[in-house]
Amino acid sequence: MAQPLVGIVMGSDSDWPLVQKATDTLKAFGVPYEVRVMSAHRTPELAFDYSATAEARGLKVVIAAAGLAAHLGGVLAAHTVLPVIGIPVGGGPLNGQDALYATVQMPSGIPVATVGISNATNAALLAVQILGTADADLRKKFHAYKDEMKQKVIAANEKLNATL
Amino acid sequence: MAQPLVGIVMGSDSDWPLVQKATDTLKAFGVPYEVRVMSAHRTPELAFDYSATAEARGLKVVIAAAGLAAHLGGVLAAHTVLPVIGIPVGGGPLNGQDALYATVQMPSGIPVATVGISNATNAALLAVQILGTADADLRKKFHAYKDEMKQKVIAANEKLNATL
Amino acid sequence: MAQPLVGIVMGSDSDWPLVQKATDTLKAFGVPYEVRVMSAHRTPELAFDYSATAEARGLKVVIAAAGLAAHLGGVLAAHTVLPVIGIPVGGGPLNGQDALYATVQMPSGIPVATVGISNATNAALLAVQILGTADADLRKKFHAYKDEMKQKVIAANEKLNATL
Amino acid sequence: MAQPLVGIVMGSDSDWPLVQKATDTLKAFGVPYEVRVMSAHRTPELAFDYSATAEARGLKVVIAAAGLAAHLGGVLAAHTVLPVIGIPVGGGPLNGQDALYATVQMPSGIPVATVGISNATNAALLAVQILGTADADLRKKFHAYKDEMKQKVIAANEKLNATL
Amino acid sequence: MAQPLVGIVMGSDSDWPLVQKATDTLKAFGVPYEVRVMSAHRTPELAFDYSATAEARGLKVVIAAAGLAAHLGGVLAAHTVLPVIGIPVGGGPLNGQDALYATVQMPSGIPVATVGISNATNAALLAVQILGTADADLRKKFHAYKDEMKQKVIAANEKLNATL
Amino acid sequence: MAQPLVGIVMGSDSDWPLVQKATDTLKAFGVPYEVRVMSAHRTPELAFDYSATAEARGLKVVIAAAGLAAHLGGVLAAHTVLPVIGIPVGGGPLNGQDALYATVQMPSGIPVATVGISNATNAALLAVQILGTADADLRKKFHAYKDEMKQKVIAANEKLNATL
Amino acid sequence: MAQPLVGIVMGSDSDWPLVQKATDTLKAFGVPYEVRVMSAHRTPELAFDYSATAEARGLKVVIAAAGLAAHLGGVLAAHTVLPVIGIPVGGGPLNGQDALYATVQMPSGIPVATVGISNATNAALLAVQILGTADADLRKKFHAYKDEMKQKVIAANEKLNATL
Amino acid sequence: MAQPLVGIVMGSDSDWPLVQKATDTLKAFGVPYEVRVMSAHRTPELAFDYSATAEARGLKVVIAAAGLAAHLGGVLAAHTVLPVIGIPVGGGPLNGQDALYATVQMPSGIPVATVGISNATNAALLAVQILGTADADLRKKFHAYKDEMKQKVIAANEKLNATL
Repeated sequence: MAQPLVGIVMGSDSDWPLVQKATDTLKAFGVPYEVRVMSAHRTPELAFDYSATAEARGLKVVIAAAGLAAHLGGVLAAHTVLPVIGIPVGGGPLNGQDALYATVQMPSGIPVATVGISNATNAALLAVQILGTADADLRKKFHAYKDEMKQKVIAANEKLNATL
Repeated sequence: MAQPLVGIVMGSDSDWPLVQKATDTLKAFGVPYEVRVMSAHRTPELAFDYSATAEARGLKVVIAAAGLAAHLGGVLAAHTVLPVIGIPVGGGPLNGQDALYATVQMPSGIPVATVGISNATNAALLAVQILGTADADLRKKFHAYKDEMKQKVIAANEKLNATL
Repeated sequence: MAQPLVGIVMGSDSDWPLVQKATDTLKAFGVPYEVRVMSAHRTPELAFDYSATAEARGLKVVIAAAGLAAHLGGVLAAHTVLPVIGIPVGGGPLNGQDALYATVQMPSGIPVATVGISNATNAALLAVQILGTADADLRKKFHAYKDEMKQKVIAANEKLNATL
Repeated sequence: MAQPLVGIVMGSDSDWPLVQKATDTLKAFGVPYEVRVMSAHRTPELAFDYSATAEARGLKVVIAAAGLAAHLGGVLAAHTVLPVIGIPVGGGPLNGQDALYATVQMPSGIPVATVGISNATNAALLAVQILGTADADLRKKFHAYKDEMKQKVIAANEKLNATL
Repeated sequence: MAQPLVGIVMGSDSDWPLVQKATDTLKAFGVPYEVRVMSAHRTPELAFDYSATAEARGLKVVIAAAGLAAHLGGVLAAHTVLPVIGIPVGGGPLNGQDALYATVQMPSGIPVATVGISNATNAALLAVQILGTADADLRKKFHAYKDEMKQKVIAANEKLNATL
Repeated sequence: MAQPLVGIVMGSDSDWPLVQKATDTLKAFGVPYEVRVMSAHRTPELAFDYSATAEARGLKVVIAAAGLAAHLGGVLAAHTVLPVIGIPVGGGPLNGQDALYATVQMPSGIPVATVGISNATNAALLAVQILGTADADLRKKFHAYKDEMKQKVIAANEKLNATL
Repeated sequence: MAQPLVGIVMGSDSDWPLVQKATDTLKAFGVPYEVRVMSAHRTPELAFDYSATAEARGLKVVIAAAGLAAHLGGVLAAHTVLPVIGIPVGGGPLNGQDALYATVQMPSGIPVATVGISNATNAALLAVQILGTADADLRKKFHAYKDEMKQKVIAANEKLNATL
Repeated sequence: MAQPLVGIVMGSDSDWPLVQKATDTLKAFGVPYEVRVMSAHRTPELAFDYSATAEARGLKVVIAAAGLAAHLGGVLAAHTVLPVIGIPVGGGPLNGQDALYATVQMPSGIPVATVGISNATNAALLAVQILGTADADLRKKFHAYKDEMKQKVIAANEKLNATL
């Protein structure tokens, strides 16, 4: 694979099935990425290093997926000037509302671009859009993606109405 | 002002005091922007047009600030491939929890990069980071900004401990 | 089927099992309707057109069913003067509380008549009541419907007490 | 005043400042209305009678404003086939979330068309839209109202940009 | 069975499995009761009559079990001076939080003695305690019940520690 | 004052302004009461003794007012067979939602009859209703109280309509 | 087993599967403990005695696991000067949010050291850390435990990347 | 001041008025402490170093006060084996519920001992209790503190009853 542009970090390998929706999406757009299991609390130095060196290693966007008191996005954002996208992972006793608050309610100065609870697809799409700000080809692919979504909805509508 | 790179849209001019924190931040980074009052529900065609033409007009990022059932970010995102940043505006009976949910819980396919409730500063900083992915100079400014934040915290710590 | 009076729009065809409770109810009252799969975010122009032409095409009421950051009701309401009924669809990580807030907390000027989470039956009944304001026959049917509900409760009470 | 078409019921006269936003709106549309202070719990028989006779007295729509465990909308809906619009009134310890749930989460069979917390304006507008389903003149007025809203947003946008 | 002292009303016969925990408890204390399926919204007149005549018919306490926008307790309390105990029934999309708010947040003047979500046992025990205020024998039974609970906990503790 | 029938316990003397609404109500009904400041956590032995001796001292009902993690009602209920009414006191960072949950969600076996957040009036009225189950005179007074509430609502309605 | 240093109290033996995660953890650190089933409401005197004698019996830390209106931690804390760790047990209709509030929102003066919902492992680890403040050997073990966690994350990362 | 045993870290100097309640409490118990302004996001390296060296510098307990997406407690806990006490600071748009979740819902392996929202006094008391596990003198002081609380409640009770 080419030089990764997106670094995806997940707090636990149990998040991999969820994160795969992000990697599938990046693959579909031809965006090179790398994946890491890394914890803000269990491997703080690794997370520190990963984030602090991300820019120099050529990454453009970081995606962090974590649940419960989801600090991963904020911790990564503390060490880099790259945009960090946070996926609050659901499934715990509070259904991800804790992860959502812990990801989105960052103090002024260190934003984490938050997507919906467990919405790894949207995290990848947002990364594509960010890269697209300097890549007309990616923007073109995203127009095609939007058109494809539209056609699917139109087809679903026709299929449903055909059976009524 | 130079060609705007960031388009800031607010649902009502009553959001202007909040949005000014975003424009102040963009100014400090030297990022040209434009500001619009435009409503997803009261001026849907204008919002449609604004978003659909944003890319062609040279904008790179769109910021949407709205409260209550905050649809503005999602509606703008529907019409563009540019990254859309959503500021859920607080202050209503549900303290912005409605705006947060309405902004962040977007369906797969149309992400809105959500920042904390009423956190316009973080929306602007995220826009700078996004532009920074293709602008080493902006990244340098952001490093300086992070360093300045650090120095302020260190100074606050010293000042407090001097008085103890 | 006769000229539809109620237009039911759902954000995804996965909502069809839920929406069928609405169509079953409208059928029972003899109210002609049409069903569309249409997304506020994936097919915004279609939603725009559908709503903007609804009045001219003879529709009297629009019902919108959507989940998560449920913008559909608000987006349809933006383009029409017809009453729009919103069904916040549950089932996501926040159990429909996000959809409820995103549907009901509309800003002043553009109401969405919101029913309970996933309560498609009540959306259809509300449509019948709205049409009934100008249709004594429908009101009569609704009186009969209310009486039928009452008899069912009475029968359930008798059946339970017979077994005690 | 002409034969009232909309009956507005509030649970306490302390809701009057809020309810006035509804009466002002109805007046602006030329829709005749009546106002009652009536409680689901303190004057249940009056509420019963009011609702049970509403249809025969020529009312077309009922609006109920109540806070806390807001039963008023549901109790009125139990006795009539007219559409009942519920305004969950905020301001208590739970900021109206209790009133919202108690108004919108009606069981199947007895809908209450719920608007946003304390949003009396939207309740009146919804009543106008409901009456408009059989009154082309009202629909025309509503188109004008929507256009006026649009012009106000456009003016606000121009005014803001003139000062930048 | 003797003259019922406790009247248990449930909003739907689907609540019967839950309500049986209450009737089992009352039986265990030898407290005569009656059970009714009756809806605040589907059979409002029956609920009205039931409550308004409860005192004269010799009932001492009324228990109401209802879910969603649970108005039943409040509606019964409106028509009687007897204490009304409310059981907020869980299981809907909001897990009974709606029923809890709709039951407990009654306005001043019309209390509903609320127990935990779906806690029908506690509703019956509270009824026993209320009757016990004028019945030393019942109080004695309740002391025995408390002692029995204590012994069960002690036994559970011993059993667990025996296996460690 | 006569032998107290209702014992009111508050967790802190700062709750006294709230609790006075309860004592005013009991006075109006001529129900003798006593008031204690006593904490489940700061004076657990006193709370234990107070509750364990309440029945023998002639009390019939206990009312507990506490905020935050409001354990007072449950702790008192643990030591007595008398009905315990809990007032969840609002005003803290969670607006009394913590106190509500901590009061109402008691485990099976030890009910606390919960009233609305900070609704001391309803706690007293519930105590009156409980005493009324064995006191026809109190029930008569409660009928008069209900009638008085009704007249006030009717008067408020007339006054409002006189000004329209 | 040696003199227990940690006393674990659970409100019901149904909490045992959860509490075992705590005992497994303490065993792994070689910390002697004891386990009790004891209820704040069903066996208040036992809970009182257990806590009041804990210090004299040589315990250093108390752990309380309880669900719903979880008073156990607070009640134990009322009777001892030892640190009390509270585990809010999830699984009820409110998913442990009630237990969390009832455990953590203690009034000033009587803290309960609260861990995450149903997170018995963290309760045990916190007990180890507390004991470690005076036990260098335990701190050494905890360093090893942290290192082991780190190695597991690193291994998971390597394993995942090996399969990509 | 003697060698500090408790290190108090706050995310911003604006938290100082709140944190002073903790320092006042520690002073009253004669526990030496130090105070730092340090941010998990603005000065991550400082927070890292502070926590990683805390044990070697002789600290026994760390207290972290932070609001919004409060990562401070978790970040400090990641780098030390000392017990970390978290104070979720309220006052933002979500009234500290975000800070509570972000502090208490830590993943297994890295506990943060959480106290109530903005309850700095309890954080300090918990630190005292932790130190007291190895310091009989501190435990004695805590017994005296508990007794003093008791006397204050008794005095408040007497004062109130003297005025009735």
